[in-house]
Amino acid sequence: MQSATNDVTFITKLEACWKRDNFVCVGLDSDYEQLPDVIKSGRPVEDALFHFNREMIDATHDLVCAYKPNAAFYEAQGEAGLRALINTVRYARETYPQIPVILDAKRGDIGSTNMGYVQSAFDYPGVDAITVHPYLGREALAPFLARKDKGIIVLVRTSNAGAGEFQDLSVGTEQEPLYMVVARHVVQDWNSNGNCAIVVGATYPDELRRVRAVVGDMPILIPGIGAQGGEVAATVKAGQDSRGWGMIISASRSIIFASRGSDFADAARVAAEQLRAEIN
Amino acid sequence: MQSATNDVTFITKLEACWKRDNFVCVGLDSDYEQLPDVIKSGRPVEDALFHFNREMIDATHDLVCAYKPNAAFYEAQGEAGLRALINTVRYARETYPQIPVILDAKRGDIGSTNMGYVQSAFDYPGVDAITVHPYLGREALAPFLARKDKGIIVLVRTSNAGAGEFQDLSVGTEQEPLYMVVARHVVQDWNSNGNCAIVVGATYPDELRRVRAVVGDMPILIPGIGAQGGEVAATVKAGQDSRGWGMIISASRSIIFASRGSDFADAARVAAEQLRAEIN
Repeated sequence: MQSATNDVTFITKLEACWKRDNFVCVGLDSDYEQLPDVIKSGRPVEDALFHFNREMIDATHDLVCAYKPNAAFYEAQGEAGLRALINTVRYARETYPQIPVILDAKRGDIGSTNMGYVQSAFDYPGVDAITVHPYLGREALAPFLARKDKGIIVLVRTSNAGAGEFQDLSVGTEQEPLYMVVARHVVQDWNSNGNCAIVVGATYPDELRRVRAVVGDMPILIPGIGAQGGEVAATVKAGQDSRGWGMIISASRSIIFASRGSDFADAARVAAEQLRAEIN
Repeated sequence: MQSATNDVTFITKLEACWKRDNFVCVGLDSDYEQLPDVIKSGRPVEDALFHFNREMIDATHDLVCAYKPNAAFYEAQGEAGLRALINTVRYARETYPQIPVILDAKRGDIGSTNMGYVQSAFDYPGVDAITVHPYLGREALAPFLARKDKGIIVLVRTSNAGAGEFQDLSVGTEQEPLYMVVARHVVQDWNSNGNCAIVVGATYPDELRRVRAVVGDMPILIPGIGAQGGEVAATVKAGQDSRGWGMIISASRSIIFASRGSDFADAARVAAEQLRAEIN
């Protein structure tokens, strides 16, 4: 990859975390309804969400390579959720600037419109990376791809049970699955700024292995560990790059909701430690 | 389609508008930077966006079949943008309840996460329909598809110049373009609640004709008229259904920014009238 500057980018932050054997990404899928009572009690929605996330971040910061709030859980709470998301991103970046923050927003519109999403993600809460849909093609995603310092993480093979409906369709004369074609386009044609990464679910280790074989050392965000059923050993074997790095292994509910009691932060740390140990 | 109830739904609202020969959809792509000075002067961002949209809606309400705010332009303005979006949707729905409001958000995550987007779109500002990405498949979009009263508008062939990168790939033993396969899945398998629609850009009339041939009378949201270069006559010929209906022909900049002077509302009405006349 052509990341030839000395500037701190999403990729350089990731690599520094990987050097410390940190591959766990904590998915801050902080569904307000699911928060521990001790967090919700006496706090407005905005404060409860932010307080919970801050506890999660403080409890796990030395164990992880990324935090990944999913926009849907914050948008569901309207303005209060948006403020909580922004405060969470700011807190993480100010307190632990070495850890990248990924906004899992799965955006993707036509080019001129994507400028709005670029602004809302990178300039407003200031995340390090964002997830995007590939369906509209490189030309549409150009405003994202132009941001050399940010990570543009393209959906390739998602973790959900029905992911294969389109992603597994055989394409072209080679009869290669669509997800492999998307992976090839990203690595061969979209990555001129060295800022691309891709998503492949831990629930599909065979697909993960096939994708790794064509994307070189490109980072792969791997959701689906834990509550969704992905297995750690198979994931690491299939997902690691030539350096034994390259993985952003994301767990959400199994860490952040490891306990709903007053020990929720300690329980999250224990769950993250266990996942980290399993990976290594 | 199986919309056998007497309830007011996205589809029944559309059909009532089409009966009045209204096929124009005004895209409220209200980029704050582009608003007329007379709107921005002395108003905070939230008020300027809402005031502009209210003027657009009041000036065009008897000419249109839908309003379509694009989420990106509001998210770009943070909390102020979100409040303006919510106020705009509420104003349109309270003042002109016969006209459906489409949130052009192009969302699409795994199933459990999509619940957050369902809540943020349908329950919070309360839009009538939302645009979604197909890449994760029907299983992931189930929380959207379950909302019988709402319109679920699936991206099939988008209006951007690079849309063909994946959408035109030949798929399966039939070697049919991916966008046609997506259209077939939506009409044959996703539409059990009769609440689906699709997106095909006006910039691709040949593709529009091919899609119409397989989707029956399903509504097609057709962006790309005006600033993006789509031609009206070719669009109507290719896009109309067996009833001469079925089209939500969306124009954004060519209507809402028809003038940047103090006559911006009158100019928008004139532009919408011209487009309506051309269509009919």
